[in-house]
Amino acid sequence: MAAKACSVLITGANRGLGLEMVKQMVESPWPVRQLLACCRDLDGTNRSGFSLAVDWLTFSPLCLSDAGLNLLVNNTGVLTYGTMQTTSTQKMQAAFNTNIMGPMDVTKEFLPYLQAAATASGKPGMSCSKPAVVSISSTVGSIATIKEILSPFSLPAPPFLSSQAGLNMLTLCATEEFRKDEILFAVLHPGWVRTDMGGEGGAIDAPESVEGLLCMMDSLTEKQTGAFLDHEGKVMPW
Amino acid sequence: MAAKACSVLITGANRGLGLEMVKQMVESPWPVRQLLACCRDLDGTNRSGFSLAVDWLTFSPLCLSDAGLNLLVNNTGVLTYGTMQTTSTQKMQAAFNTNIMGPMDVTKEFLPYLQAAATASGKPGMSCSKPAVVSISSTVGSIATIKEILSPFSLPAPPFLSSQAGLNMLTLCATEEFRKDEILFAVLHPGWVRTDMGGEGGAIDAPESVEGLLCMMDSLTEKQTGAFLDHEGKVMPW
Ligand SMILES: NC(=O)c1ccc[n+]([C@@H]2O[C@H](COP(=O)([O-])OP(=O)(O)OC[C@H]3O[C@@H](n4cnc5c(N)ncnc54)[C@H](OP(=O)(O)O)[C@@H]3O)[C@@H](O)[C@H]2O)c1
Ligand SMILES: NC(=O)c1ccc[n+]([C@@H]2O[C@H](COP(=O)([O-])OP(=O)(O)OC[C@H]3O[C@@H](n4cnc5c(N)ncnc54)[C@H](OP(=O)(O)O)[C@@H]3O)[C@@H](O)[C@H]2O)c1
Repeated sequence: MAAKACSVLITGANRGLGLEMVKQMVESPWPVRQLLACCRDLDGTNRSGFSLAVDWLTFSPLCLSDAGLNLLVNNTGVLTYGTMQTTSTQKMQAAFNTNIMGPMDVTKEFLPYLQAAATASGKPGMSCSKPAVVSISSTVGSIATIKEILSPFSLPAPPFLSSQAGLNMLTLCATEEFRKDEILFAVLHPGWVRTDMGGEGGAIDAPESVEGLLCMMDSLTEKQTGAFLDHEGKVMPW
Repeated sequence: MAAKACSVLITGANRGLGLEMVKQMVESPWPVRQLLACCRDLDGTNRSGFSLAVDWLTFSPLCLSDAGLNLLVNNTGVLTYGTMQTTSTQKMQAAFNTNIMGPMDVTKEFLPYLQAAATASGKPGMSCSKPAVVSISSTVGSIATIKEILSPFSLPAPPFLSSQAGLNMLTLCATEEFRKDEILFAVLHPGWVRTDMGGEGGAIDAPESVEGLLCMMDSLTEKQTGAFLDHEGKVMPW
């Protein structure tokens, strides 16, 4: 029964891509039963225009049913600018805390609910309507291609780049660790998007990016566990 | 004049691969003028049998000459075992501090000396007898191949894997940032070595690994800046 009856939790849901995901999940035929929109500061969040179908919450307390959590979207992230020379150890640590430890801690916190969703599903295989953890990372976390990216286009942001690579690796560790629990893990790159983070020079708007991201999530199977894809489905190099 | 007159600083020099590097650099025809063997605890270090050619030091005070520092080997590292489920946030942070922030902070600390070495050399091009920063990382930091590594051979060490990937990315950021200063950066994998870290099951002994590593360092040119090689010269995937 749970296969289509999806519960979804999105972190960093108060603005940018996270907020757009909430909007599109509420409006679209994406089969969401319970939508948990997480943000660190509820007061600063513009929740007008959203129906009661959305539960806005900080990380606790939780009220997930026995069917558990089907899809966790680790969307929070911080882009810290600065060269290696101008970046303090504290700034590096802060970026690692938000971009790596954050997704790790949230995943661990919700692990019992993800495992419950696997049990409740009763079907073999993996998908985002069974338990899945999707982390929004970035193409600039790709160590294999960063040289080509950095040569013509300077992006002085070692804390971001290094923490995105670390998050990618952590996702692959989790992929293997939780394979027996049938929890799907994937990393998605949203494109260069005009949000607070992406800036006005971005290539696409949030609605286009999120349409692609949701379409990708919808299509994931056990074949893609541990994959790194962009919003158009292109396989990204590590 | 400085091209062959090399000054070298090695971190984590009190045991394992670091200690073996010090031994071989003192004994071999590697043209070392000044050898700075860094360790966090001088008292616990067995320095008997080493000539006065080696300066043992904790990170300060420094007494590098105007010719600066030619080669910095970031060799310290910690392998923390544990699955994602059993690894605390604090353990993750500690691994990131040692394996990423450590090399970054040491590199920044010695940057003026590396830049001085570039000026003193007076020759174009890059090599380990001009300024170079070599970080000892690991093949298990390779995101591109970790799936194949983890499938048959479980290595429950997300803090190590994730921090090695982060260090690899940080090295590539540094490669681009300091290209104009003609500082060569490279990442080397020492093989699976029978040290405290590698354990008794390792494939080779420290002398064999270090012979290969020094040979590699000796051969690096500007073509390899930003490269990831093993002790036998094999190009490692990112
Ligand atoms: N935009 C792009 O071009 C682009 C490209 C590649 C990847 N990405 C990734 O896509 C994701 C979403 O990006 P975006 O463009 O929507 O960014 P954004 O507009 O800057 O929004 C970032 C979100 O993350 C939350 N956040 C940041 N630090 C946090 C912390 N320490 N604790 C809790 N929440 C925190 C923010 O909450 P507050 O409002 O409370 O700060 C906000 O909800 C990020 O992971 C980002 O790395 C974006
Ligand atoms: N052995 C292998 O098979 C293997 C494989 C791949 C990569 N590596 C890499 O090779 C390098 C050397 O490894 P190894 O086998 O020689 O390891 P090791 O025998 O465990 O020695 C580690 C060295 O790092 C120092 N260190 C650890 N944490 C430190 C900290 N927080 N601050 C300062 N110094 C610290 C240690 O000093 P103390 O004595 O004070 O603790 C010691 O000198 C490491 O970067 C490791 O990741 C080794």
